[in-house]
Amino acid sequence: MNIEHYMNQLGQAARVASRALLRAQSAQKNRALLEIANQIETQAAELQAENAKDLQVGVDKGMDAAMLDRLTLSDKAIATMAEGLRQIAALPDPIGQISEMAYRPSGIQVGKMRVPLGVVGIIYESRPNVTVDAAALCLKSGNAAILRGGSEAAHSNQALAKCIAAGLQAADLPAQAVQVVATTDRAAVGHLIAMPRYVDVIIPRGGKGLIERISQGAKVPVIKHLDGICHVYIDQDADRTKAIAVALNAKTHRYGVCNAMETLLIAESRAAEILPQLALLYAEKGVELRGCAQTCALIDALPAQENDWATEYLAPILSIRVVSDVDQAMAHIAQYSSGHTEAIITENLSTARRFLTEVDSSSVMVNASTRFADGFEYGLGAEIGISTDKFHARGPVGLEGLTSQKYIVLGDGHIRQ
Amino acid sequence: MNIEHYMNQLGQAARVASRALLRAQSAQKNRALLEIANQIETQAAELQAENAKDLQVGVDKGMDAAMLDRLTLSDKAIATMAEGLRQIAALPDPIGQISEMAYRPSGIQVGKMRVPLGVVGIIYESRPNVTVDAAALCLKSGNAAILRGGSEAAHSNQALAKCIAAGLQAADLPAQAVQVVATTDRAAVGHLIAMPRYVDVIIPRGGKGLIERISQGAKVPVIKHLDGICHVYIDQDADRTKAIAVALNAKTHRYGVCNAMETLLIAESRAAEILPQLALLYAEKGVELRGCAQTCALIDALPAQENDWATEYLAPILSIRVVSDVDQAMAHIAQYSSGHTEAIITENLSTARRFLTEVDSSSVMVNASTRFADGFEYGLGAEIGISTDKFHARGPVGLEGLTSQKYIVLGDGHIRQ
Repeated sequence: MNIEHYMNQLGQAARVASRALLRAQSAQKNRALLEIANQIETQAAELQAENAKDLQVGVDKGMDAAMLDRLTLSDKAIATMAEGLRQIAALPDPIGQISEMAYRPSGIQVGKMRVPLGVVGIIYESRPNVTVDAAALCLKSGNAAILRGGSEAAHSNQALAKCIAAGLQAADLPAQAVQVVATTDRAAVGHLIAMPRYVDVIIPRGGKGLIERISQGAKVPVIKHLDGICHVYIDQDADRTKAIAVALNAKTHRYGVCNAMETLLIAESRAAEILPQLALLYAEKGVELRGCAQTCALIDALPAQENDWATEYLAPILSIRVVSDVDQAMAHIAQYSSGHTEAIITENLSTARRFLTEVDSSSVMVNASTRFADGFEYGLGAEIGISTDKFHARGPVGLEGLTSQKYIVLGDGHIRQ
Repeated sequence: MNIEHYMNQLGQAARVASRALLRAQSAQKNRALLEIANQIETQAAELQAENAKDLQVGVDKGMDAAMLDRLTLSDKAIATMAEGLRQIAALPDPIGQISEMAYRPSGIQVGKMRVPLGVVGIIYESRPNVTVDAAALCLKSGNAAILRGGSEAAHSNQALAKCIAAGLQAADLPAQAVQVVATTDRAAVGHLIAMPRYVDVIIPRGGKGLIERISQGAKVPVIKHLDGICHVYIDQDADRTKAIAVALNAKTHRYGVCNAMETLLIAESRAAEILPQLALLYAEKGVELRGCAQTCALIDALPAQENDWATEYLAPILSIRVVSDVDQAMAHIAQYSSGHTEAIITENLSTARRFLTEVDSSSVMVNASTRFADGFEYGLGAEIGISTDKFHARGPVGLEGLTSQKYIVLGDGHIRQ
């Protein structure tokens, strides 16, 4: 197979399908989503048989238990996919929403209409459920999708693609509205990210290495999520109970997630009072602490190296730094944060107001755990990723992040004078 | 001078200034804008003396009259710049606006706050007034700006930079909030567009060649405006008077502008009735007509070549095609439009509704001239360009297009369960 030719064909078909999707009614898109859910449930045995092939290859290749677990289409994973589809079907359709319509002095009416981005390319790793989630979000937002999953899930993804195709057909939508790349050749990714004529945006979902490679090679915009080096700052005016609750939750609720706290900052005036108790709680959870000199003088911690402040541990490790005040805390964040999520714990309104205004991250919080930075917690209904960029979508990206707005103008034969 | 080192210094200083701008009050930004306006007026003689040097170089190099005219800082040009600054000062400040704040089931409040993009690089050609317009829009929207004007306006731009610096200083804002690149070395542009660490977005303003070069080389997002191949479609249910008024205005109001109509589409059932009268009116204005076979059978026109449908004439030339109906019109637009602006002339509500929904351009109009596609006509108050992209800003880009939104979360010690 000539990969470039094949990818161009997919792109061209996606572009045609995206035009058909502009005409699709909400009810039609929802019918497709519900039918895909039904297909996944009725075809569960077939899906699991195909999934077993992928798992066998994984076992033969010596894949570790965590990866095999992510790859498995268990009964629960199948039920969760179907449930996710039904939830997305139940969300309001963002497409066609008209806002800000107003008369202008010339007599024309001007407003904005929400429209799909066009064709979305999604590149992801082992979890086959992403095939269904991504297809559903793109379809609901009126975008054609080209999905490129990991080779380790190839059989599972092709089986899911059949369910998706059946759902599209049942709703009289073009089968090319969702295309799953059928080759595991790595060159396919290189072409997918470099077809501005056919693809409007690329969303990589996976490890940092994957995302960096794609960002560097892409010839179209990338909605990307790099590190989550998240901070909690306990201010001099923090409530002690809230500070301890949030600092504990932000680190220990889950370790391997992007919105977990990686660095705790604490005002000098409160360090001696709060750090020892926190250290006990972290010790109970088995969290390794790495502190600045002032921290190490107060609690049992390893000395933090410069590199610690710039590290996303994704593990039971926490770096702690004592700072003089909110200014030094914000300077530390400006220097080391990845722009994902930062929280301040304070009862002082003016300090909170400054932190909200001056901290330049996709989510900025007052007296709440960084773990809330999530599309579901924010009420987006679904999430295709969290963007650490400032351009276009920022923070958790739901359906709206997969749309754009065009201007619409209504007149009655108006001409420009 | 080591250009790379110099541009890195500018970038680093801009990044620092952008953080200071996050703290800037609206009143402070407005004071700077008004003071820049005063400076430009009081320094008019000095500005014109520097401008004369650029004009002399232009004359010596054999620059044509139109280019020299664009380069001239006449009394009127100076008054217009000052007036523009005062208008931007009077606009509402987009930064810090909080929207969609709502309680979530977890008890946290989640909303969005409008924030600057950070550092904006603007690359433009001969008009020195762009230096002031761009600086004003960036400053008002809280962005630090790095401005790279054309070498032909180097003296004028440096003189304007002094006025801008004085205005910033009067308002206690960092001088590095607006930096005008002091070298005319072309390598500076190459560095400016490839410093993702320091520059968040690039806006090229100029000819298609400039914009394509920059888009291809940029390592950061580009807000770009390529062609304006705009269409007017006269539907079978068009009002004859409105059709003629709009078709005439869209082509002849101004020729060298991106929102001028380049191709007229007309329903077969109305061609014989409307085209002859339009042809007379176009002839009066000296517009050259290039038509499809059906058009040439009805009126005096040159036969259009395939290439005509894909050409932005920016001149008194119009291509005309007879189509069977709105579907064929929309198919033509999908194939040839640059995605800038399209209009339909119809009294039929269902047809208008379809056109608005299915045409994928940054502005879609009903019974109005394409010439209205403009930031001022749309009420944006100012415009830094018109984006033909779908990602981020689309259509005329005003202050809001220079901003992003971050999530803000308010809690009272809330943790994730």
